[in-house]
Amino acid sequence: MEKIDLETMGRRAAEVKYELQCLPAKKKNEALLEAAEQLAADTKVILEENGKDLRRAEENGMHSGMTDRLRLTEARIAAMAEGLRQIAGLGDPVGEVMEKFERPNGLRIRKRRVPLGVIGIIYESRPNVTADAFGLCFKAGNAVILKGGSDALLSNMAVTASVRKALDRCKVNPDAIQLIASTDREAASRLMRLNQYVDVLIPRGGAGLIRSVVENSTVPVIETGTGNCHIYVDEYADLEKALPIILNAKTQRIGVCNACESLVIHEAVKERFLPELARALKEAKVEMRGDRQVRALVEDAKTATEEDYGTEYLDYVLSIKVAADIGEAIAHINKYNTKHSEAIITENKENAERFLNEVDAACVYVNASTRFTDGFEFGFGAEIGISTQKLHARGPMGLKELTSYKYTIEGDGQIRQ
Amino acid sequence: MEKIDLETMGRRAAEVKYELQCLPAKKKNEALLEAAEQLAADTKVILEENGKDLRRAEENGMHSGMTDRLRLTEARIAAMAEGLRQIAGLGDPVGEVMEKFERPNGLRIRKRRVPLGVIGIIYESRPNVTADAFGLCFKAGNAVILKGGSDALLSNMAVTASVRKALDRCKVNPDAIQLIASTDREAASRLMRLNQYVDVLIPRGGAGLIRSVVENSTVPVIETGTGNCHIYVDEYADLEKALPIILNAKTQRIGVCNACESLVIHEAVKERFLPELARALKEAKVEMRGDRQVRALVEDAKTATEEDYGTEYLDYVLSIKVAADIGEAIAHINKYNTKHSEAIITENKENAERFLNEVDAACVYVNASTRFTDGFEFGFGAEIGISTQKLHARGPMGLKELTSYKYTIEGDGQIRQ
Repeated sequence: MEKIDLETMGRRAAEVKYELQCLPAKKKNEALLEAAEQLAADTKVILEENGKDLRRAEENGMHSGMTDRLRLTEARIAAMAEGLRQIAGLGDPVGEVMEKFERPNGLRIRKRRVPLGVIGIIYESRPNVTADAFGLCFKAGNAVILKGGSDALLSNMAVTASVRKALDRCKVNPDAIQLIASTDREAASRLMRLNQYVDVLIPRGGAGLIRSVVENSTVPVIETGTGNCHIYVDEYADLEKALPIILNAKTQRIGVCNACESLVIHEAVKERFLPELARALKEAKVEMRGDRQVRALVEDAKTATEEDYGTEYLDYVLSIKVAADIGEAIAHINKYNTKHSEAIITENKENAERFLNEVDAACVYVNASTRFTDGFEFGFGAEIGISTQKLHARGPMGLKELTSYKYTIEGDGQIRQ
Repeated sequence: MEKIDLETMGRRAAEVKYELQCLPAKKKNEALLEAAEQLAADTKVILEENGKDLRRAEENGMHSGMTDRLRLTEARIAAMAEGLRQIAGLGDPVGEVMEKFERPNGLRIRKRRVPLGVIGIIYESRPNVTADAFGLCFKAGNAVILKGGSDALLSNMAVTASVRKALDRCKVNPDAIQLIASTDREAASRLMRLNQYVDVLIPRGGAGLIRSVVENSTVPVIETGTGNCHIYVDEYADLEKALPIILNAKTQRIGVCNACESLVIHEAVKERFLPELARALKEAKVEMRGDRQVRALVEDAKTATEEDYGTEYLDYVLSIKVAADIGEAIAHINKYNTKHSEAIITENKENAERFLNEVDAACVYVNASTRFTDGFEFGFGAEIGISTQKLHARGPMGLKELTSYKYTIEGDGQIRQ
């Protein structure tokens, strides 16, 4: 792959975006299916390059959790290809007329959905993001500039080369996907300040990466993915619903952003509920960290510190607090949450409605697991991430959330008085 | 007014936002009308404080254009009050159910419109922004933290005190509006990094202010207001429409962001159109700066430099370029524009549609003046600014654009498989 400087990449992306914004859905879908075929055909090469990344990572002492994220297999490459096919199957959001009205002076105004333009993605060691992020951005008519983790450089280069080959064959400008082929950390910093060419940056990875992008980027950023998610067991909870929901949200997959990290239990149910919960969590190997009231009822619970309540464990650990009423529970959640996903377990309609209204988060649940915060579970299809900010998009970000709009105004000579 | 530190202001705003997000429309409208009354009642005090600001500004040698922006009069205070009454008359966007659907597993999902939360406004010397920005943010359920220009500090303090008095009387927490009562530039910088409490920053002012906020803010920013707007006179233009539209867009009000700053003229009409245009512009005291082809036809046109094509004059100056075809015109506009408002004059439907599709701007016009890019002209009512970025909101930003959304998900015990 040709090595080019970031300024040139920015310029090329900004040029190709004018082509992409006019590309018909049929053409985009054809290119996505072709890219899926090409990835499958290039499996051997991609695995070879991934093998080199893995060997270097092991030499550098990367721990096994991380190498697992870095590792590609035939099945994982097949899943990447299948992801692109699914995106080809989704509707094209570009061009939709979102609103249409006529003014008294005869001006005809339409609000039309358009691509964002150029999207920068900064991500960590999963090479599958290369294909997934490209697929979504491309279908929504955007050019992407990708900056993956340095551990995965050769894998990302191989995936990018494969996709570019497919685009070229479909007569789509391959600069629709560009990868910063550098392990230089400076390159990421420069991408974060490439305002002239890049319309939005989406970091995908851990809390540290996201913080660094938010702090250093002058390009608008969409924050995704940190989830300190709570479940509140109300005094009117059906405890037979509460237990399986908590177990599901905590343990069905511990390393994900919509997993439950903290419980709030109403005082009135603590005696009935906490011992039973403790038995089930113990069986599931989940460590409990609670306040004084929790520890009085659960012998082997550890002490929850202020820091615990603010922590997204992504592990078999759960912090627990007892609250005197729903107001205290909501205040606690609004203080410590990351605005991702929060749930109340209650049979009381009034309390449910109050929780839905007052808790500040992208997704607020009544009597269901927080694990449903997901593009597929919402029926949106693949997503680029879960936005935890309030600007532009909140919650699962699918194709629509990768677009903007423009107003078109048609007249016949109107001037302003 | 009590002097408090920024951290405390942030905390108070973040607390009051929970009250404001639940405030019924009736209560908000009552408070807005009360604030309008109070501003009228406090006219004398506000004018006195404004007088002190003006005297200091004159002592410091502020030029007359700037003192005019700083000056309040009885009429201007009445207009501020009237602005609040108009906002009270607009519909409340908060609580609207934007989408509603049920999943196969029985989860009932609603996408509901909610306030953004806490909005920071950094603005320059017009004290009327204090009331206008508060009114819009408040009606959309948001708390505001205002940082006005130091020249207008006493005026802004008087307006804020008046509004707070009205809120207090209506039993609305007056921290819904807080003003940073400091002339310290550092205060603005710290506001730009108050991510813990502030959800979005909207700078209102000149290009320098906006650039500084974009470069230094870690809080998400909505860029507003710089407009290097073009009009393209196509080969199929009705020149009898072109001339009044250009004159209107250039001269109806020269200091505004939707004024026309640059023309592109198709080669095929240059000889028929340019001399006539030059006569009309000369009469309107507009200086022309053109390329070689323009200068060949217009004797007293000056030379347009690269810098001219990139300049928002906000003055009686217009840059002009001749293009060989519509493709060149569009490329020129996309290169130099600020993504604000762009127009084509043409009777050719194909060219009109191509221009609407390919020009990258918030508002793209066919056969109408760019001066219509305005909340009232679009029928949205008062606006907080014209967004020139693609994230979140584009074009005139009214009440809806000052909101976000949340998903609420109701189940009866669903867990994820």
